[in-house]
Amino acid sequence: MYADPKFAELLDYNKMGGVIPVVTQDAGNGQVLMVAFADREAVEMTLRTGYAHYHSRSRNSLWKKGATSGHVQLIKEILVDCDSDTLLYRVEQTGPACHTGARSCFFRSIEELES
Amino acid sequence: MYADPKFAELLDYNKMGGVIPVVTQDAGNGQVLMVAFADREAVEMTLRTGYAHYHSRSRNSLWKKGATSGHVQLIKEILVDCDSDTLLYRVEQTGPACHTGARSCFFRSIEELES
Repeated sequence: MYADPKFAELLDYNKMGGVIPVVTQDAGNGQVLMVAFADREAVEMTLRTGYAHYHSRSRNSLWKKGATSGHVQLIKEILVDCDSDTLLYRVEQTGPACHTGARSCFFRSIEELES
Repeated sequence: MYADPKFAELLDYNKMGGVIPVVTQDAGNGQVLMVAFADREAVEMTLRTGYAHYHSRSRNSLWKKGATSGHVQLIKEILVDCDSDTLLYRVEQTGPACHTGARSCFFRSIEELES
């Protein structure tokens, strides 16, 4: 999916100081794969290229998912929430979404956490 | 689902100053319903009661989803991401999740936004 990058301007980045949360979901089976953040630049690049981009808070930089691992996310659809301050990327995921090698970052029940 | 509220202690609330993002998903059909935030108190109440609680940033207070509308979210499962800083509530949603009356807060494509 390619879309006009102008739509990136219409989101509300102010509540979180320049970024919005992004939920990434497998467009095929509905599995929630990860949650990350995007700034306006990342949303623009996602719209322009058709691949999921985020803003890395730890590195303070634009981050194309899979740029080094090859585990890219092809955008099928982008939904916006009622407040225009959160995005849902619906994607076709190549390989695992999680850096641990798991298909999804959400691979544990809260009851599996150990103190 | 009820679980020991002690699990709320094991999450990383520091990255966002005391809260973590929560994605809420319909456990039946996989639809992503909303994204909100929870602090430790909200996670504890969710585990203790079996109903989704959040932390309202605008009101700075504990918020039981549906407390006034009746549109509660019965917890079926809670998943934690790889960094223990994001939750996925898988729920049985009563009525619409969105205050607009839509089933999900994600009812618009980004291309439907108007400047």
